[in-house]
Amino acid sequence: MTDTWWLNPCKPVDTEAYENALARQQQLTKPAGSLGQLEALAVQLAGLQGRVKPAVDQLWIAIFAGDHGVVAEGVSAFPQAVTGQMLHNFVSGGAAISVLARQLEARLEVVDLGTVTPTLDLPGVRHLNIGAGTANFVDGPAMSVAQGRLALQAGRDSAQRALEHGTQLFIGGEMGIGNTTAASALACALLDCRVSDLTGPGTGLNAQGVSHKVAVIERALARHAAERGDVLQTLFNLGGFEIAALVGAYLACAQAGIVVLVDGFICSVAALVATRLNPASRPWLLFGHRGAEPGHRHVLQHLDAQPLLDMGLRLGEGSGAALAVPLLRLACALHGQMATFAEAAVADRPA
Amino acid sequence: MTDTWWLNPCKPVDTEAYENALARQQQLTKPAGSLGQLEALAVQLAGLQGRVKPAVDQLWIAIFAGDHGVVAEGVSAFPQAVTGQMLHNFVSGGAAISVLARQLEARLEVVDLGTVTPTLDLPGVRHLNIGAGTANFVDGPAMSVAQGRLALQAGRDSAQRALEHGTQLFIGGEMGIGNTTAASALACALLDCRVSDLTGPGTGLNAQGVSHKVAVIERALARHAAERGDVLQTLFNLGGFEIAALVGAYLACAQAGIVVLVDGFICSVAALVATRLNPASRPWLLFGHRGAEPGHRHVLQHLDAQPLLDMGLRLGEGSGAALAVPLLRLACALHGQMATFAEAAVADRPA
Repeated sequence: MTDTWWLNPCKPVDTEAYENALARQQQLTKPAGSLGQLEALAVQLAGLQGRVKPAVDQLWIAIFAGDHGVVAEGVSAFPQAVTGQMLHNFVSGGAAISVLARQLEARLEVVDLGTVTPTLDLPGVRHLNIGAGTANFVDGPAMSVAQGRLALQAGRDSAQRALEHGTQLFIGGEMGIGNTTAASALACALLDCRVSDLTGPGTGLNAQGVSHKVAVIERALARHAAERGDVLQTLFNLGGFEIAALVGAYLACAQAGIVVLVDGFICSVAALVATRLNPASRPWLLFGHRGAEPGHRHVLQHLDAQPLLDMGLRLGEGSGAALAVPLLRLACALHGQMATFAEAAVADRPA
Repeated sequence: MTDTWWLNPCKPVDTEAYENALARQQQLTKPAGSLGQLEALAVQLAGLQGRVKPAVDQLWIAIFAGDHGVVAEGVSAFPQAVTGQMLHNFVSGGAAISVLARQLEARLEVVDLGTVTPTLDLPGVRHLNIGAGTANFVDGPAMSVAQGRLALQAGRDSAQRALEHGTQLFIGGEMGIGNTTAASALACALLDCRVSDLTGPGTGLNAQGVSHKVAVIERALARHAAERGDVLQTLFNLGGFEIAALVGAYLACAQAGIVVLVDGFICSVAALVATRLNPASRPWLLFGHRGAEPGHRHVLQHLDAQPLLDMGLRLGEGSGAALAVPLLRLACALHGQMATFAEAAVADRPA
């Protein structure tokens, strides 16, 4: 029997903690609703964590990296060697996510699923060598079923390590030259949207480059059309190692009861795959930001997600989610530490 | 000769630091522009602070409170005694801004310009007793010229104390039952908008309450129409003590070279008054968020402001600006600590 762990039940929301947190919110010394989105956020976290006063101090950031065979079609503005070079930058502290992890006192782990530089051996990076990047999905599946299962498990393993470290909030980031092409193709296959609605400049294509990218994705979708109804096989056909790892991490977090803060376009597509595979994972996924990549808006709408930030970010690496962490922490602090009307002897509004 | 200190020159932006910061941003290991709004923010802060690597660690939050005579018209959902009760809550640590100030390691000062409870004597509050609240501006000017000058000076004094403490970022907050009515009236007089576009529920009026509020503001605008061209007199006619103090604080910060992070609707109206009095103050004003009060959007547009957050906040107290502080701090950390392409030996995109 093949293990299909990703279909296992997700941890249910604690409705008692949720209701108690909701009641507490109504008693805090402020006009009801005046903290906007932060109020619902604190209450949701309470339900997820099973405590009236939730906390997201213990933060885990896992960066999943992988290369993409579809880069052979000329879909990226950057050379493919950058994936490996950035792995070094992540662990030596110079990348955006390295700076953010330090500032947020997060644990940062870097997982190399498989790049075009298989000889890489960087201290501090987990090199898994699932393949020398994916295959070009215009010609065939991006990865074999065996590779896909390894990538899913790599995400699950990261979630397990996070759990062992007492993580209260999990961020998955990604790095992989070409991965907006994979994410757009995957989103198109799942959402039945027009390719042009879900395809954008990525790290910096011009209009001509975007048109070419659209054409490449249309060829890939035609190639794999027969399997569109099979979400897992579609992930293996059109995804990337790092995208499959994100799917595995999100589902394992939802099963273990760790709140996830989803990053940008690519991570949101992974979240879409995760919720299609196992819909009960949805409550565990919070969304950090609405990014600049045009397809992100569509994917967020389909997930009925209300992201916290909207600042035109398009870096990846988990950076947009990391930037939203202080809002979650402050939402918890406000919820947990503000005085009630009774405690502060402040008049609530007359009935 | 009357002192008109608010017209004194503002500190000019350091164009050399600005240009050097802009050049540095282009060299950091990320696709150009991929950190969106945070990139321009770091560069702007560099120009304002005159250093290539800016910082906003030293944070000053001043809450200005005052009562409003126009509450006699029945324009607020909360009783007027709440202004004084909340002063106590600010200094005893239970208010939203008290929690945020602690989390952000900010200095919090509370300035009572004048409430309907003039006997208040709360440890930790600066009671200035400019008046027992303003007069009802439907019948006459909200405050005398002498009172208005005292309120402006109170804001300037706070900015001066902030300067003496090495403040790198100044947030002004406000508390005053009825002050969205004053802010809406003031914005209408300055912007020549329809009153209904700039008037909203405040702390929680229903639709009927908002209609009544519009009617009250229309009467006030008619009463003071002759002096609309005089910005300062319009502030005294339709404003509040705490709004005038915010105007004074913003202008004094711009003159002293302290970056300001403006909070919600009421503070943004104060920023509008400040920039009308002394347009050179504009570069010193950053905007924390777009709030739920409907008029805020219009005021921000007239200021050509791009707020950092949009979370449906409508609390005041400086809370929305405080919530945006981590974004400024992280923008500075990214700008100051990320590796350049050369330092990290990462390939920039081919020319």
